[in-house]
Amino acid sequence: MRRLEQQMTFVAEAGLLKGVLRQTMLTRPARRENSAEHSWHLAVMALALGDYAPPGTDLARVTAMLLVHDLVEVDAGDLFVYADAADQARQEAAERAAADRIFGLLPADQAASARGLWDEFEERRTAEARFARALDRLQPMLANYYLGGGTWQEHGVRAGQVLDKVALIADGSAALGEFARELVGSAVRQGFLSPGQ
Amino acid sequence: MRRLEQQMTFVAEAGLLKGVLRQTMLTRPARRENSAEHSWHLAVMALALGDYAPPGTDLARVTAMLLVHDLVEVDAGDLFVYADAADQARQEAAERAAADRIFGLLPADQAASARGLWDEFEERRTAEARFARALDRLQPMLANYYLGGGTWQEHGVRAGQVLDKVALIADGSAALGEFARELVGSAVRQGFLSPGQ
Repeated sequence: MRRLEQQMTFVAEAGLLKGVLRQTMLTRPARRENSAEHSWHLAVMALALGDYAPPGTDLARVTAMLLVHDLVEVDAGDLFVYADAADQARQEAAERAAADRIFGLLPADQAASARGLWDEFEERRTAEARFARALDRLQPMLANYYLGGGTWQEHGVRAGQVLDKVALIADGSAALGEFARELVGSAVRQGFLSPGQ
Repeated sequence: MRRLEQQMTFVAEAGLLKGVLRQTMLTRPARRENSAEHSWHLAVMALALGDYAPPGTDLARVTAMLLVHDLVEVDAGDLFVYADAADQARQEAAERAAADRIFGLLPADQAASARGLWDEFEERRTAEARFARALDRLQPMLANYYLGGGTWQEHGVRAGQVLDKVALIADGSAALGEFARELVGSAVRQGFLSPGQ
């Protein structure tokens, strides 16, 4: 049962992601979401929005990538997407160490395949990774839009900064990139996102 | 953009599952988990424990089923697994109405396929549905075991009642059923689950 014990240890450790809070605000209940909820929501988005991935994209692989992409936050915590470069570099080192530890809980073959999914997501070279990252960028934007401001207002983020992130969405899905650009325009017109850089 | 708007409405509605609390207690932080977190954890279990599904089981289908299996709780809420038969009948009717409404937010082709996944999970006829349900039963047992009692103690649940649920786990996966039976035995020996019916 050694293999099964390793897998169950990983499953229990993964559950700790329910305690890692993100910046994104929920409307009902009014609180910040955690990374487990976020990961589930992204996987549901992959089911609902798979139409907009480039032809031939392996959506089961996208889903698996989304399910594990934030597990490193059990150790490294979550960093706000508009953090400065020094904080981002520190975060990257902490996440690599966390990936070694957490995926290393699994039996060797599964550890390698889960780590491979995480590296693929980080490196953004495959169509699957680019689509997964597009969803990861889109989800907090949707939350801010439905909230009428959310973390954009809280952190004084401007439309130009959001549009820089929209470029990453368009890189994974032309249609979702266009949708996100329109969302930013609509938020500016409604006055809850400031124009400019 | 009508199709995309329908899909985004569904995605936003799905997010409300983050507010539906379940009985299962988390250790860190100490609070009840919600159904979005639960659904994500089950999908991670499908990745980690896929070895124990019967040969030929389509694990991508299991994962998709787990991601949507609790969406009806956005309307119907969560019912404790040891609720009485009258409560369970009321819950089933509420869940069917919720499935009509929530999956119906999607474009017709996707609504049919998501509803098909939900029906498949409920009917427990395919290997995929039986394995998915085994994971759904196993996850709260693991939480209770790691907590040293949890909802078993809170609701005065006895080993015989837990073993009835273990039969459903064994029906989806012989190995996980055996694991769960040993877990129950160990909980009784350690004194945090009462023996008997």
